[in-house]
Amino acid sequence: MKNKIGPKDTRIGWIGTGVMGASMCGNLLSAGYKATIFSRTRAKAEPLIARGATWADSPREVAHQADIIFSIVGYPHDVREVLLGDQGVVAGSQPGSVLVDMTTSEPALAVEIAAICTKKRLVSIDAPVSGGDVGAKGGTLSIMIGGDQATADALEPCWRAMGSTWVWQGGPGAGQHTKMVNQTLVAAGMVGVCEALVYGHRAGLDLERVLQSVASGAAGSWSLTNLGPRIIAGNFDPGFFVEHFVKDMGITLAESQRMGLQLPGLELAARLYQEMVALGHGRKGTHALILALAKLSGVAWEDRQ
Amino acid sequence: MKNKIGPKDTRIGWIGTGVMGASMCGNLLSAGYKATIFSRTRAKAEPLIARGATWADSPREVAHQADIIFSIVGYPHDVREVLLGDQGVVAGSQPGSVLVDMTTSEPALAVEIAAICTKKRLVSIDAPVSGGDVGAKGGTLSIMIGGDQATADALEPCWRAMGSTWVWQGGPGAGQHTKMVNQTLVAAGMVGVCEALVYGHRAGLDLERVLQSVASGAAGSWSLTNLGPRIIAGNFDPGFFVEHFVKDMGITLAESQRMGLQLPGLELAARLYQEMVALGHGRKGTHALILALAKLSGVAWEDRQ
Repeated sequence: MKNKIGPKDTRIGWIGTGVMGASMCGNLLSAGYKATIFSRTRAKAEPLIARGATWADSPREVAHQADIIFSIVGYPHDVREVLLGDQGVVAGSQPGSVLVDMTTSEPALAVEIAAICTKKRLVSIDAPVSGGDVGAKGGTLSIMIGGDQATADALEPCWRAMGSTWVWQGGPGAGQHTKMVNQTLVAAGMVGVCEALVYGHRAGLDLERVLQSVASGAAGSWSLTNLGPRIIAGNFDPGFFVEHFVKDMGITLAESQRMGLQLPGLELAARLYQEMVALGHGRKGTHALILALAKLSGVAWEDRQ
Repeated sequence: MKNKIGPKDTRIGWIGTGVMGASMCGNLLSAGYKATIFSRTRAKAEPLIARGATWADSPREVAHQADIIFSIVGYPHDVREVLLGDQGVVAGSQPGSVLVDMTTSEPALAVEIAAICTKKRLVSIDAPVSGGDVGAKGGTLSIMIGGDQATADALEPCWRAMGSTWVWQGGPGAGQHTKMVNQTLVAAGMVGVCEALVYGHRAGLDLERVLQSVASGAAGSWSLTNLGPRIIAGNFDPGFFVEHFVKDMGITLAESQRMGLQLPGLELAARLYQEMVALGHGRKGTHALILALAKLSGVAWEDRQ
């Protein structure tokens, strides 16, 4: 596939209209694409249908009506079901169609899907994203792309509608592996931000003033600048759910084990986040990690003066 | 002390002309201050003497010739010696003088020094910095200030000569505590950067391309942007020495223990960095942590293809 895939040439399919998927598909509609959509919960697809998208009753039906089928669902087993199941995309696709899975999922599953697609003369791309609900809504996601490079290039008009950064990272699974790199960075960074704020609080410092000293130098990070003030304010509304992050770190650790890697920082973060779920914080934002870390030190973060 | 301390009114003393101190004192000279200086190794002070600074044979002698005495030395025991020893600054100071210790040192020692100074009608300020040799040279340090607020305000012309950010953080020791917050953030961030790059390497990714995907989003940090490329290139020249960072983390952990805090991420980082010293990497830059983390996973980082 060498030509760019513009809105006039192409029938889009979209599977999964959760917080991320609804905004991303919406941005494709805004760019002029026609879409056929499916989601486990039809109600979540209604706003897109109201904007002209066509409903289909299964991923398989979506594939019948589309040349490029995007998916962004919850867990790897959901990816397996919507792509490879009886009522899945592969079962309904015509040769030449392109499958683009944007779920954060297992690199090995991306490789498996790519191999199955090749046999059926389909092309598959793995393209997980970072940037959260804000990036999805604003079309400023970073899209990490694995799979056939020419296809990735041809999809540029679609990437442009959804993201501000899109980089082809290599063959099948390379997009997923890059996302794992991203999550490893986020995990360690969040542990650091939360421990630093627990320390500063116990030392009696004014934490907002501390941020003025530390945020712009060698200690600075996106997490500190964007989530530090929310942590200090005790606002744990989710930008990204703890329970989804636990899933991502589980995938990263499983892949690490498979590759013979020891990542003690990531292992620690995963343990702390699992503790968060056990404490009932799974639907809070990832920066609520401070609740578990403060508790370790006997600090009731939300009740502190 | 309410008036600003400008170059015409004030005799400066400076103790410690290592990499950081020489540049910082040099910036005060450039701003027009006259300085009397002492350093353990006189040769390191020669460039400042050539620019007009006056040599003194001890910290005590420096204090005789100065109204404001800055110090930036190695370890807390050095701070104790140059400030509180027989030949130290306190022994040589006249009432009304100001002592400004810019060494990264123990918060409790800063409190002890402040109490001693108060008894002798001296004023003491703790003002550690971040920004490394580059920030010291360029006058772009972040200066974290603890002690009497009016004195900290009066010193503004000095801070301006050495830094681009200076924030009064509270009473004696608050500057040191803020630096501990800074180092806690740096430590966790570096673990994350190094683990993420080990993962990406083993997964077969092109690491420079990975940075294009992850550096500007939620995974982004100063460390990733500034040290990631050096790690990938295998350039471990020190911006900041491993062995100094080990000192700083030791102080932070000791303070944490004193305050009843558990900081598992920092503890892990400190262990990994101690391993770095054991491996003979103490005089490399902090980003050489990748050597220890890669080794854990059987990757010889510097010999990789």
